Amino acid sequence: MTIYADNAATTRMSQTAINAMLPYMGEIYGNPSSLHTIGQKANEALTEARERVAKCFNCEPREILFTSGGSEADNQAIVSAARIGEKKGKKHIISTKFEHHAVLHTLAKLEKEGFEVTLLDVHENGIVTPEEVAAAIRPDTCLVTIMYANNEIGSIQPIPEIGAVCREKGVLFHTDAVQAAGHLHIDVQAQNIDMLSLSAHKFHGPKGTGVLYAKKTIPLTNIIEGGAQERGKRGGTENIPGIMACAAALEEACANIDKNAAHLIPLRDKLIAGLEEIPHSILNGDRVHRLPSNVNFCFEAIEGESLLLLLDDKGICASSGSACTSGSLDPSHVLLAIGRIHDVAHGSLRLSLGEDITEEQVDYMIQAVKDVVSYLRSMSPVWRDLQEGKREYVLK
Amino acid sequence: MTIYADNAATTRMSQTAINAMLPYMGEIYGNPSSLHTIGQKANEALTEARERVAKCFNCEPREILFTSGGSEADNQAIVSAARIGEKKGKKHIISTKFEHHAVLHTLAKLEKEGFEVTLLDVHENGIVTPEEVAAAIRPDTCLVTIMYANNEIGSIQPIPEIGAVCREKGVLFHTDAVQAAGHLHIDVQAQNIDMLSLSAHKFHGPKGTGVLYAKKTIPLTNIIEGGAQERGKRGGTENIPGIMACAAALEEACANIDKNAAHLIPLRDKLIAGLEEIPHSILNGDRVHRLPSNVNFCFEAIEGESLLLLLDDKGICASSGSACTSGSLDPSHVLLAIGRIHDVAHGSLRLSLGEDITEEQVDYMIQAVKDVVSYLRSMSPVWRDLQEGKREYVLK
Repeated sequence: MTIYADNAATTRMSQTAINAMLPYMGEIYGNPSSLHTIGQKANEALTEARERVAKCFNCEPREILFTSGGSEADNQAIVSAARIGEKKGKKHIISTKFEHHAVLHTLAKLEKEGFEVTLLDVHENGIVTPEEVAAAIRPDTCLVTIMYANNEIGSIQPIPEIGAVCREKGVLFHTDAVQAAGHLHIDVQAQNIDMLSLSAHKFHGPKGTGVLYAKKTIPLTNIIEGGAQERGKRGGTENIPGIMACAAALEEACANIDKNAAHLIPLRDKLIAGLEEIPHSILNGDRVHRLPSNVNFCFEAIEGESLLLLLDDKGICASSGSACTSGSLDPSHVLLAIGRIHDVAHGSLRLSLGEDITEEQVDYMIQAVKDVVSYLRSMSPVWRDLQEGKREYVLK
Repeated sequence: MTIYADNAATTRMSQTAINAMLPYMGEIYGNPSSLHTIGQKANEALTEARERVAKCFNCEPREILFTSGGSEADNQAIVSAARIGEKKGKKHIISTKFEHHAVLHTLAKLEKEGFEVTLLDVHENGIVTPEEVAAAIRPDTCLVTIMYANNEIGSIQPIPEIGAVCREKGVLFHTDAVQAAGHLHIDVQAQNIDMLSLSAHKFHGPKGTGVLYAKKTIPLTNIIEGGAQERGKRGGTENIPGIMACAAALEEACANIDKNAAHLIPLRDKLIAGLEEIPHSILNGDRVHRLPSNVNFCFEAIEGESLLLLLDDKGICASSGSACTSGSLDPSHVLLAIGRIHDVAHGSLRLSLGEDITEEQVDYMIQAVKDVVSYLRSMSPVWRDLQEGKREYVLK
């Protein structure tokens, strides 16, 4: 059995998305900026894709900017808000400690320029409250940027309420919705969102394509200087095949949000219940305000990488957390932010389910994780010390 | 007859490139940062693609950075050199007046930060000499950035010689090779190139994928902050399908440079000779140091857009110049740089040939352009004034 349970890292392109992409690779290959027929066909496709994406979020087509991915969109949203802010002498930005590095590293860059950044603490359930955001807003705050749903632990933030707080205080609000788009219902107007980033490959669209939604009143700053594409706000020939596939995948995902959630949530919760039977384990993230696909655990006395490799041997593709930080030996900043100590944070497992997951696969995963955790513990000197009382358990 | 003669704007993906891309859309869809088998297969592909691209330019794989396109690569090369320069108190950059806007706009941004930019004049044949570059280099020059071949008029710069001048003076040398890569032989070592940008869709690869070559001793500055991808120098999940197709298309193009040139040059020169029969016309760009695919003319008393639309009616997809600036009413900055006055620059036509162009198609294009120019002139009050001697010809 092979189970791909790393859909938070990337997803397989859907046939719908592939079919939407193919004609623009071989037949309708024009540059949308070209005036001739072949170019104009590409331009019509671009216009159509923009309309379709806008419809998914209840915004206007001109509020949709196509980028090379979620990271670029995050960078552009934050830098744009910073440039608007500094013109008004407002150089304070609020975010959280458990954002994606596309956000955190952009904020760090701005700090070097003299911006002040407040990174809010996150509760143990992986959620920040609107009240905490409100309390952090100062007269010189130019931006609040808080992710819609966390990429590691799946906790969903109270975005509409945070947006309302920002709107009331006249502060721009951006949300990194890379994990949420296509999986949760997003309405930028009803949810008070000024800017939003997404990445197509997280909802069965193509890699290399993302979207930045920015309210039409927000002047964007270029991250990529160049030609007049994207109303002059993003240089580079538009990736029409990717953009068409992005629109198709997003539409398909958005149309199936409720159906997918109805299928996923009971299986997710069965998986959580099964893994909770493992002694000295703990669920990371909120139990209710949680992505339907996300399961994330820490296990005492387990080294995450070994766990992954043994699960891979059993056909289960999982991760310890964000794919973007793999290769780093540091424990997850997300798990540290919700209060896990270093040792425990190293023993993390994220299973992010695909919409086609079956109960049989869930049962298989529960047994496999149990077996692998037992096996690893049987060889672990730390576990022996814990068992013999020479050391205290962190996870009771 | 339909003739796509806008290959400088974008090309049709080759079957080789499409075939290289498809498996990574549907089957090998992993995130290369993931530790499991599906992720590692993607990572192996990435490693292989990097090696293959490096081989095409005679550099090391670690000197290849994959970007979302040529514009992003240009931005990153220039900003990186600027950051290196300013640390040493060197804030002078040399370029030319006829670079792509991805270069010119990035330089303009740096000027606002306090950098001083010298834009060299271009000779009427669209070429800058190494001596002119040498004369412009100052003790505080941190970068020379000069395009390999111009996107509008196809003139090829003396890149190895310019590179040698820069190397001798200890100044970094970047070349925007978006029009040259896959079409001309490039060897970054033999040609003294420190940094080079390319875009895959200009050589029958996919849109949305580019490459920045940067000598391993050059510390790059991120344009996109984020995860640890691309040695931490470019955030965002790698676009594996695009990268694989880029490598395949580049290899194919590089293997066929001589064959394509042998086919294209005689046909290009026949087309040039044919269009020169049109009275009061002029070839733009050098006759010899010229991309094998490029033909660019100005016609007196012709409005470029009307010319394009009528050629489109005859099945010929052409452009007036860069696709990236279409939509702008300004005349081409490239044509102004080589000394064409506004009125004449408006009457430009670029025909950029595909490798499969036939002599029959060339004959058809010559006749079509002749017919359309005659027709437009027959209706033009400016042309009547010229004929009646009420106004002087610019193009004799």
